[in-house]
Amino acid sequence: MNELDWIRKIQSWVEAPAKGVAVGIGDDAAVLNPSEASLVLTTDSLVDGVHFDLAYSSPEDLGHKALAVNLSDIAAMGARPKYALVNLVLPPGKAENFLPGFYKGLSAEAQSAVTSIIGGNLSRCEKGLVICVTAVGEQVGAPRLRSGARPRDTIFLWGAVGHAAAGLQALQSLGLEEAKALFPTLVQAQLRPKACLSDAWLSLGVHASIDVSDGLVSELWHLARASSVGMELFPQNLDLTALQPLADESGAAALDWALYGGEDYALLFTAAAGKDEEIARALPGVRAIGRVHAGEPSVWISTEKGHQPLEARGFDHFGDTKA
Amino acid sequence: MNELDWIRKIQSWVEAPAKGVAVGIGDDAAVLNPSEASLVLTTDSLVDGVHFDLAYSSPEDLGHKALAVNLSDIAAMGARPKYALVNLVLPPGKAENFLPGFYKGLSAEAQSAVTSIIGGNLSRCEKGLVICVTAVGEQVGAPRLRSGARPRDTIFLWGAVGHAAAGLQALQSLGLEEAKALFPTLVQAQLRPKACLSDAWLSLGVHASIDVSDGLVSELWHLARASSVGMELFPQNLDLTALQPLADESGAAALDWALYGGEDYALLFTAAAGKDEEIARALPGVRAIGRVHAGEPSVWISTEKGHQPLEARGFDHFGDTKA
Repeated sequence: MNELDWIRKIQSWVEAPAKGVAVGIGDDAAVLNPSEASLVLTTDSLVDGVHFDLAYSSPEDLGHKALAVNLSDIAAMGARPKYALVNLVLPPGKAENFLPGFYKGLSAEAQSAVTSIIGGNLSRCEKGLVICVTAVGEQVGAPRLRSGARPRDTIFLWGAVGHAAAGLQALQSLGLEEAKALFPTLVQAQLRPKACLSDAWLSLGVHASIDVSDGLVSELWHLARASSVGMELFPQNLDLTALQPLADESGAAALDWALYGGEDYALLFTAAAGKDEEIARALPGVRAIGRVHAGEPSVWISTEKGHQPLEARGFDHFGDTKA
Repeated sequence: MNELDWIRKIQSWVEAPAKGVAVGIGDDAAVLNPSEASLVLTTDSLVDGVHFDLAYSSPEDLGHKALAVNLSDIAAMGARPKYALVNLVLPPGKAENFLPGFYKGLSAEAQSAVTSIIGGNLSRCEKGLVICVTAVGEQVGAPRLRSGARPRDTIFLWGAVGHAAAGLQALQSLGLEEAKALFPTLVQAQLRPKACLSDAWLSLGVHASIDVSDGLVSELWHLARASSVGMELFPQNLDLTALQPLADESGAAALDWALYGGEDYALLFTAAAGKDEEIARALPGVRAIGRVHAGEPSVWISTEKGHQPLEARGFDHFGDTKA
């Protein structure tokens, strides 16, 4: 099969594009009909050996995950995902074993998010697999920026944190089969994370928002810096239930996974304190996990001994600290 | 420097985004204000060891080229480039030596094409450098598809072909300094190709269009298949002037470079035969290089012995044939 044959195959694997698409896969570029909404664009990549290990992730898992991590950024802006382009760099000879499963997962994820795959690219690379996805969404209401947090806001977390990091530890210490059998929720969070997508989310009044890709504390710092506020975290409000059994077994601290583990794709946001009940009704499972304060950018927890600052460690591709 | 520091640096290196951009670099995603035009989206990648060799390409060259190859796809659709997102995967420790030069080249190319860099991503990869760019343009008139060629159309080529392939051969046989000194046009075509961008191009009546990234014959085949037509090429109408000295010196055939060399980013298009003069006036340097015929998809040249078919060889990432 040559590149053109693969592109034809891919066309047959993905859903027919939605109404807004004038030109989809197969020409020099995709064309979208004019839209009355603002368009939201983001790009994220999954790199072999950094974001996944082919010993654990199937091609189908990677199809799901590559799209989900981008949809999560679209959701964080308060937008509805619509389209995606998929740029694959893969070793020669890998296409046969990789592309069918990858596009099966990608198409399923796209279908569940009502998102059309409108284009992409295939390139060869001797050295490893890189998956770059660009997602496009339609803004609903005003963009939800990192800079919108205000003093006295409640800090909310929608979705689990720490699960993906704990899932990776389970995979690395137990192997794929045993980890899946004993800790299915954690392994699923690592291999097939889901973006937080809901119409209810889009209609809420939210001040600031970010998705938790690099770890909870790291994202709290992003909000604190962009909004020039202090962020007080109530760690007792985090849900560690699913983490505790593995923590007990491995001697790890469940709270550390929740604070510093990356790749969870939960949504972290702030809203006026009076909206707590409305938000709890709209987003089942959402938790109020802290409060915004006036002051210099900072992140802390309150203990009997006073403020305990939390450092911005988390997954950083270019720094010295790694989660 | 950590990832956040690099993103701040990048913000300072790129031009302030244009009016259409509500949110640029630095949040979870970019936001574009609603546009009355259809939007055109494409993504393309440059891979270390496949599309470039760091022994020849400087980071600045790669900044230019990574954007130009995407702008070329936007131009081929008959659209005006507006925005780009840049997804970089690079080895740890490479950022300091790579990012400043890369963004210098990228910003210069973006500025000359009136294109705003609105977002991107940085990831680590032990194994090599991958650059994925997604470009967004605004459609002018109807999209120019591969499928629009009609019997009796003239086939036009705007821009040089074979130069980039010959430039690569010069680099590989002579080394960077000598190749640049002796064959500056060819080396420039390889290291810093330019997309064919012009308002005059956008206002022409064109039936079908494609950019020449994989080689002239390969792209003729794409048009032939998509339009279900035969494409007759007049090889004597190709401009081999700049190729001839290196061909003479190296014993290579200049015509082979022109027919099968990739990475030139010329535009290949068809238009009604009566438009030849108008097109020649609008696009200086454009050449009529063939004619479209009714019949099964095919590509050929006419010789004294009759039709000589041209096979669709060119750069194929997954096939057995390579340029």
